Formats: sequence, C-alpha cells, structure tokens
Amino acid sequence: MGWLTGASEEDELRKMALKAIYDHSLCIKLGVHSFSDRDSLYNLIIQSSVLHPRKIGSRVFVSPDYNEPMEQQREVTMKRMHHLVDHGVFRGWITEGGAAVELRRMALNEVVQMYDHSLAVMLGAHYFLWGGAIQFFGTKRHHDNWLKITEEYGMKGCFAMTELGHGSNVRGIETVTTYDPNAKEFIINTPCESAQKYKIGGAAKHATHIIVFSQLHINGKDEGVHAFIVQIRDEDNNVCPNIRIADCGHKIGLNGNLLNSVADVSPDGQYLSAIKDPVQRFAAFLAPLTSGRVNIAVCSIYIAKVGLATALRYALSRRAFSLAPNEPEVLLLDYPSHQRRLLPLLGTTYAISLAGNYLKSIYVKRSPVTNKTIHVVSSALKAMLTWHSMRTLQECHEACGGQGLKTENRVGHLKGEYDVLLTFEGDNNVLMQQVIKALFGEYLATEKQNRPFKGLWLEHMNGPSPVIPAQLTGSILRSSQIQAYQLAEDLGRAFADKTILLTSIEAEANVAAGPLKDVLALLRTLYALVVLEEDASFLRYGYLSVENAAVVRKEVMKLCSELRPHTLALVSSFGIPDAFLSPIAFDWIDANSWSSVQQ
Amino acid sequence: MGWLTGASEEDELRKMALKAIYDHSLCIKLGVHSFSDRDSLYNLIIQSSVLHPRKIGSRVFVSPDYNEPMEQQREVTMKRMHHLVDHGVFRGWITEGGAAVELRRMALNEVVQMYDHSLAVMLGAHYFLWGGAIQFFGTKRHHDNWLKITEEYGMKGCFAMTELGHGSNVRGIETVTTYDPNAKEFIINTPCESAQKYKIGGAAKHATHIIVFSQLHINGKDEGVHAFIVQIRDEDNNVCPNIRIADCGHKIGLNGNLLNSVADVSPDGQYLSAIKDPVQRFAAFLAPLTSGRVNIAVCSIYIAKVGLATALRYALSRRAFSLAPNEPEVLLLDYPSHQRRLLPLLGTTYAISLAGNYLKSIYVKRSPVTNKTIHVVSSALKAMLTWHSMRTLQECHEACGGQGLKTENRVGHLKGEYDVLLTFEGDNNVLMQQVIKALFGEYLATEKQNRPFKGLWLEHMNGPSPVIPAQLTGSILRSSQIQAYQLAEDLGRAFADKTILLTSIEAEANVAAGPLKDVLALLRTLYALVVLEEDASFLRYGYLSVENAAVVRKEVMKLCSELRPHTLALVSSFGIPDAFLSPIAFDWIDANSWSSVQQ
Repeated sequence: MGWLTGASEEDELRKMALKAIYDHSLCIKLGVHSFSDRDSLYNLIIQSSVLHPRKIGSRVFVSPDYNEPMEQQREVTMKRMHHLVDHGVFRGWITEGGAAVELRRMALNEVVQMYDHSLAVMLGAHYFLWGGAIQFFGTKRHHDNWLKITEEYGMKGCFAMTELGHGSNVRGIETVTTYDPNAKEFIINTPCESAQKYKIGGAAKHATHIIVFSQLHINGKDEGVHAFIVQIRDEDNNVCPNIRIADCGHKIGLNGNLLNSVADVSPDGQYLSAIKDPVQRFAAFLAPLTSGRVNIAVCSIYIAKVGLATALRYALSRRAFSLAPNEPEVLLLDYPSHQRRLLPLLGTTYAISLAGNYLKSIYVKRSPVTNKTIHVVSSALKAMLTWHSMRTLQECHEACGGQGLKTENRVGHLKGEYDVLLTFEGDNNVLMQQVIKALFGEYLATEKQNRPFKGLWLEHMNGPSPVIPAQLTGSILRSSQIQAYQLAEDLGRAFADKTILLTSIEAEANVAAGPLKDVLALLRTLYALVVLEEDASFLRYGYLSVENAAVVRKEVMKLCSELRPHTLALVSSFGIPDAFLSPIAFDWIDANSWSSVQQ
Repeated sequence: MGWLTGASEEDELRKMALKAIYDHSLCIKLGVHSFSDRDSLYNLIIQSSVLHPRKIGSRVFVSPDYNEPMEQQREVTMKRMHHLVDHGVFRGWITEGGAAVELRRMALNEVVQMYDHSLAVMLGAHYFLWGGAIQFFGTKRHHDNWLKITEEYGMKGCFAMTELGHGSNVRGIETVTTYDPNAKEFIINTPCESAQKYKIGGAAKHATHIIVFSQLHINGKDEGVHAFIVQIRDEDNNVCPNIRIADCGHKIGLNGNLLNSVADVSPDGQYLSAIKDPVQRFAAFLAPLTSGRVNIAVCSIYIAKVGLATALRYALSRRAFSLAPNEPEVLLLDYPSHQRRLLPLLGTTYAISLAGNYLKSIYVKRSPVTNKTIHVVSSALKAMLTWHSMRTLQECHEACGGQGLKTENRVGHLKGEYDVLLTFEGDNNVLMQQVIKALFGEYLATEKQNRPFKGLWLEHMNGPSPVIPAQLTGSILRSSQIQAYQLAEDLGRAFADKTILLTSIEAEANVAAGPLKDVLALLRTLYALVVLEEDASFLRYGYLSVENAAVVRKEVMKLCSELRPHTLALVSSFGIPDAFLSPIAFDWIDANSWSSVQQ
C-alpha cells in the first residue's frame, strides 16, 4: 500500500492529484518530498501494534492512547522510539550529511509529527537538538565519540538552553561556568533558583547526556554563552554519583566538556576563539535553533492539513437543515458561510505549503552568504505558519461541532497538543520583532549607503510605487502582479505574506497551462484576497478604497464557490493516509454504530 | 477568610477595589453577585480534601488532578458532586423560585465553573437541564414526583436532545414516539443509527433518568418535538431490565412519561395543546436552552478573568531583556507590545462583565413580553462572550510563554477544557445567524408597518444618521456618544458590541464623579476603540476615514499606557481568590524552587 508512490490501482487517483500539485514545483527537483521514505514510515506506523492503530467502524486509524497518566504515556512513547530505531527509521540521520539526507530527515519528522507530538518531541530533543549541537558545536573528538552512538540511540541526549528566568532572552541566562586549570575541569554552577534549567524535553526521565548552555567566565571575564556536554545519568538510568542536580546550593558540578567549534579554552585556562566579536559569537551558538524553526514551520503545515482534510471531508458528508419542508438537508459545505470559514484556510494552506518547500530548499542549500536571509525568512515563516496552523485547527474543530471535541477525531486534540509551537524555538511575537528589526535595518542601510535594496524580497522597493486602479475588478484582482504589490505593507506580517505569495506565484509559473494551473491560480488568488480582506492595513494605509474593499469581499465569496467542487481532490492531494485522519473524515455514522462501538 | 465580603484587614484593599467596580452598577441592586454565598463556596472548595487543594511553593491552589484516566476522573468528579450536595450547596435550587434564588444559583455555578469544567458539566446536566426541564415542561404530578428528589440528588438526571445526525437542527431529530392507547404507553424508537442520542452529559455512567426529546406521532400525524422522562438505570446503577439501549433494532422501548405542560396526550390517544402553532410549540420546547445560554455566557466571563488575572500578574513579575547593558531587565507589562496584547482584553472583559450583569437581570425578570429580546440578546452575548473568553485564554497562555502550557498554571488548560462553550447550547455561528435573522425581520416589519423601531436596542435607527466629524481627536473618541453610534454596523457582531457598550455606559452613568468613574471610562473607551480598530467594517463601510483610523490606533496605544498603573487593582477587583489562580500569578520562582517541587 503506497500512499504517496501509488502502487495499487485504487491509489492512482490520489497519486495523480498529489503529483499534479507538487510536480514541476521548484522544490520537487531537490527531493523535498521523499515520497517513498514517507510511505515506508506511514506503513510502519499503521501496521505496528506498538504504535496502537485502532479499528473504528470498518477502518483503521492511528491512535496513540491519550487516556493514560503521564508516566505511562512517557514509557509507551519511549517504546515507540525504540521501535522506530529498530526499524532503521533514523539510519544516516547523524552520520551522513548533505541536502538529500536533510530533506529525508525533515520528511520523516513530518510523518511522526502527524502521528503524535510527544513522540516527535522525544525524537526532536535527541536527534535534532542534541545531535545537531554535537555536529555543529563539536570538533573531531566530539564527533568521533558521539555521532555514531547518537544515531543508534545508544545514549539519550537532550538540550538545556532555557532557564526558569530566561527563555527568549538566551543572552541573559544565569548559569555560570568557570575553568579550573589545576584540575583541568570546567565547573558549571546554577547560582540562583531562576538559573535552573527549565522545560528541558527528555531530561526528567530518560536522558543520559545533556547540552548545557552557560556563561563562560575565564580569568574573571565573561566570554558569553557557550555549550557544554554533561553526563547526567549512568547506563542504569541513575543520576550520576558525582553530579548534584539542584541540592541546597543548587549547583551542577561535574566534568563539563566544552563543545569547541566556535571557541575553546586551552588546558592552562586561556580563552581562544576565531570569532572576536561577542555578538557574532553568540549568534553562532543560536544557529542550531534555525533548524528547529524550519522543522516546526514545515511540520505545522501538515498538522493544519490533517485538520482541514478532516473538517472538509466531514463537511462533505454532514447535513444540517433543509431549505424547504421535505427537501433533503443541505451539506455543510454547500452553505456559503461554511465555505467562507474553511475554504480560505485551504487556499492559505496550499500557499504556505509551497512557501514551506521554499524554506526547506534555502535551508538545505545554506551558506554563509544566505544565513541572514534564512534567519529572517525562517523566523517570519515559523511565526506565520504556526499561527495559521493553530487558527486552522481552531476553526476546523469548531466547524465539526460536538464531533470536533472527541479525541479520536484528532482535530480538537491536535490544537491542544501543538499549541506549544506558537512559543517554542522562539516565541512568535519575539520572532516577528526580530524580522521587523532586520527589515528596518536593511532599509536604513540602503538609505545611509545610498544603494539599492538587495535580498529579503525587497527589490521591488527599488522601483516606483505601484499605481493601483481606482476601480478594481475581479479580473484585475486575479492577476498575480497586483497581488504581489498589494502585500508590501505592515512589515513583519506583510513580509511573511509576501514571501508566501511570491513562492506560490513562482511554483505556479512552472506549471503548464491547463486545469491544474487554473486550480492553483484559484487557490493563490483566494489566499491573496483573504489577506487583503482580513488585514485592515490595506484600508488603513489607503491602498484599498472603500469601494475596492467591497469588490474584494465579493470576489472572496465567489472564489469560495468556485473552489467548492475541487475540495475533495484538493484535500486528497495532501497525500495523508486515511488512517492519519479520523472517523468523522469518512463514514461517521458507521464509526458510531452500535456494532462499531462494541469492538 | 472572606474573599468577597472582606472580613479581615488584609482583604480590605481587595474588597474596596471590588466594591468600587460593582457598587452602584444597575445590577448590584438585584443581588446579582451573591457575595456571601460565593464566599462560602470558595472556602468549601479551598478547604476540602475531596476537592484536592494543593500546596505549590508557599501557597495553596485548587487543583483537580488531571493526570488520571477518564474513568477515575469521572469517579472523583461524582465524589465532589456528593460533597457539594452534603454541604448544602444546592439547597433551594429546584424547590424554590424567584429572581434571588436564580441569581444565587448562577453565582454558585460560576464558582464551580472556575474550579473545574467536568464538575460544572455534571452539575449542569442534573440541575439546570434535567431539573429545568422538569420545572418547565412538567405539571403538578411531575413536580410532586421529581422536584424534591432532584434537589437532594436522590436520583441523577440528564438531558437527551442532541442526536448523532442532528445537533443545531433540533427540529430535524429522528427519534419517534408513538402512543399505544391499549397499553396506555408511549413507545420511543430510535429508527436508525443517526437517530441515536449523542453526547449526553452524564448518561454514559451515572444517570438514572433522562429527558428524551422526540418527534411525537399521534394518529399518524407528526405533532413535532416533545419531551419525555425515561428511567434508564435502577438504584443499583444497572441498566433497567425492560429497557433496551440500542440493540439490533436500535430501539428504546419503555414507559416514556410525557412532560405535558406544553402539550398532552389523552389516555385514549388524542393530542391536546393550547399552543396551536407548531412553530411556537417547538419554540416553547427550546426555552430551557435560554437558561443554558445565559449560564454559559456569564460563566465564560469568569474563565476569561482567571486567565487574565494570571497572565497580567505574571507580566507584572516576569522580566525579559534589558534596554541597555547592566540595566535591570524590563517587566513584560512595561513593553507597549505586551500592553497592546493584554490590556484591550482587560477593557473588553470589564465591558462584557457589565453586559453579563444586564443579561442576568433581564433573564431573571423575564416575562412573555421580553422573551424575544432575551432570546436575541442571550444568543448574541453567548456567542460574543465565549469567543472573547477563548480568545483571551489563547492570548493569555501565549503571553505566559512556556509557563502557559503547564497544567498547574491553568490558563492553557482552561482553553482546552472550555473550548466546547463555542459549540454547545447553540453553535456560535448558528446563534449569530439567528440574531441576524431576528434583527433583519424587525427591520422589514418596521418598514412594512411603517412604524418606528422599538426594542432590541434599535431605537437609534428612528433618528437621523449621526454626523461623524471629518477629523477625529482623542477627546471626541473618548465621548461615549460617538462610540455608541459608531457601533451600529455589521449586524450580528455589531448588535452584540453595541449591547455590551451600552450596558457599560449605563453602569458608568450611575457612578459618582471621581477616580473610579475615570477608570471605568478608560476601560469602556479602550473596549470601544479596539472594536473600531480591529473590525474592518468601520473602514469598509466608510464610517472611519484612513486618517481617523490612524487616530484611533494611536489612541488605543495611549489608553493602554494609561491603564498600565491600574492593572493590579483591576485584576484584584475580579474578586477571584488567589487559590483559583495559579503559581505564576504570584511568586513563580518560589513555586519552582527545589524545596517547593520536593513537596
């Protein structure tokens, strides 16, 4: 059963729809989608009893059991990790490198995220954060020691950056490390309660080793934040004997091992770093967080897709109210109000899906030259994509009424599980402020240096301001050129909107004329016009007249009704196996029948 | 310890702040607040081990244990119900009547909602839905049989209106009841899977009796939806022997007992009702849902208050980033962006709090003349208040960063627990459509009958359109008259906004000039201007020029900074005991200290 590669005849339709959307896009060439690897993992999850697939009605659904106390959930999640390890899911994740490996890793991570957030977080702490820190901050001796055993899950790593008193403000953390040249040891101190490492995924129960971020004090000088490896548990899972985790003095004292790719301390206690500027040195230590932001942004798209596919399929089978006595009741999705609630979210999800591909592609092709762009784009898209994803899940669960609240139907439950995406690996509001700061800095720099804009999608600022027709019409609104210009306002959010729109337009440009191109244009236009309609900036700054705003609003309703017939094909082309959706996406009467609930 | 009545000296400040806000308001005279009853229940909850108060750091917090499987949670919730029964919390709830009793019942229900939603739902199904249906639909023989035992919780009732296939569309339910004149029995049938009663709070486990809504077929004629009492379990909690719940034929066949205040069937099988119009008869059966909507609307205000008090207190103690090296870090609430996120929600919460008092007061003074107004106002406010409450919890939990996700901090957890408010007792979107229909109907009727508008807050439509100054200023924006006129657009939502604003203005008018009146005016103005800023309708329909919108936006920021110094007093005056908030509302470092977490 190949969900994405489409082995059997019955999968042909799904495969066609899926390939139709993704083929020719700028990213397929890079292997962004890793279809066959995804297929294997989908099937492993659906077929393994450890991962608890469940028959509901006549169908199988993946279904972690959430009706268990936290301790048991942790144990079963650990079992699932080992199951994936044993089946080679993580082969090559740490010891191999290059764009193809990174894309495959992201693809598999997306599949796990759609299955269960706890498992994804356990995987992420070990492979992405611990593994990434060793790869990035370590040098040969760390790599020789740790890469292979990390990949094989022969130890369990975690990543301790956040403290009780400092989250977003990493530079302000209070843990302090000093070096004792006589003992040739680093001493890591937690000098006060607010300096305790906090919310460290994996540390409470299983982790044997941890990356500790700390201020490094050498010869009385604070050299800023550095990363250390610390062993916290032995092989029998006991907290190591010569380690004290928060005793009276609240100290961790141990043989900390500095990860020394960015900076080092000589045996006699001198601080050495090729990066002299402490601000740049600090920035280097934050680099692994970029990979986290990229992963979160792209995974959140899939979570939105699970919600949308479920709510739209339900809206295509659930009826309510008749228009006249003795007439059949009307399908939810045939109500214009229901279309207006869900179909713009579908348009946006397609648009951000293409933007996610773009983000992956610039990330895996990263170089020192593109680092700034990647930082700004990944920050903006992490915020926008997770906001969209949570808004989508909220709307989808409301649109499913009482059914939206049943855990087995996923859509409400996923909202609660993934809400943390809004704040972790960079609080969305803080990230957006960084984007605004970078864009504003670029603006000031071009003025000061009297040079044109370059990069950060700002080149259009070099030309004259666009002339907006006094009287908009539907056909003007549907032209991609107008849409792109319209979205150049309100900085942070507008930057993200414009990035999303431009990547959509670019992907669409590579598609040959025909029905597919037309549907893509509908989706892209719906996305752009909903931004115009919902973001009051366009009216506020005079880019839309009152009359034109009314035209936009009317056009949005029209676009919804034009998309209505394509809904099922469009959610099928998400390529998510039925088992990852939920009973209400299919025959919800059968799933609730007496014979089903007695199973 | 009187949280609200303020016995001890240390409570004096709280009491002053609280009374300052509520005294003189139009509702205090009606006894809306029932302070001493609330106090008793607060203390009962805080002091009883069955309700599981927990010491975190040096403070006590109420804290239902959510880390238990569903079955155990149900059992402990039932224990808590009995504890409240045994302590006389429900005394007079069913056997007594009148405005004072109803207000006291609502007040106590609000306290339970702030404690735990599961307990509130258990209480609601039995006392409000079952008890309300018996009171409302029953006649003397039902009252004699059921009122006393219901109040004493000597049986357990629930309320089965919703079916798998029909939720909002109650008129379309498929359960069918016929009458057998020979056996003098009603036969209640579930003719198909989609007709099964669904999501019936309390039915799965404990309920002994149930109100079943069903189509009533008499002599081959469908007389529409009626309500029946059905016993489903015996005293030993076994499903009754002569009852079949969903066997092959999916039938419930039993001695159904028609609740006959609206309509009756004579022993020989003739249908009798004083209400000849089936539409009106159907409306009569929906009446108890109004009480549910009122309760949900006012309780949702308190849930928002718990979230706001927590997030604002946290923002008054949590610091992040320094503006310059070696300066202390800045309190979250001193960032204008953080003020802009949370303080408008505070303004709105005060405004809806006063609107909630108004809703309670018209509800308890209800008469046939006011039924329509109550239906429209309760529908509009149920939707707006629950939307506001969920939006507030979402923003508050994000504003608390990683802390917002810990269950013990409540704010994130409450969002998940109470999300159901958006869909139950009337889906918000459906309710808003009913409001729009009613308002539009009123508009057409005045045109057709060539008469002035009367009721539904529409009287301003009888005068000329307001003249809006071309150049708004801060002082014009702060005048309540301008605010009220500005809010007359976009029907459903505008109707609710206007109702909320007018009740605020009315309450404020009764306050003597002085500092309190000034703060109330600030809160009311912030509420009104945020509506103007966020709802694009004002720009869209030409009520705000581009220039004026900029003035509004600037004024909102200014209002936030003016409210900043009053924040702590304003959240204290919610009158919610500290124990109902959470550790991060107070000393979150102490709550996370080594000595605290070892408790």
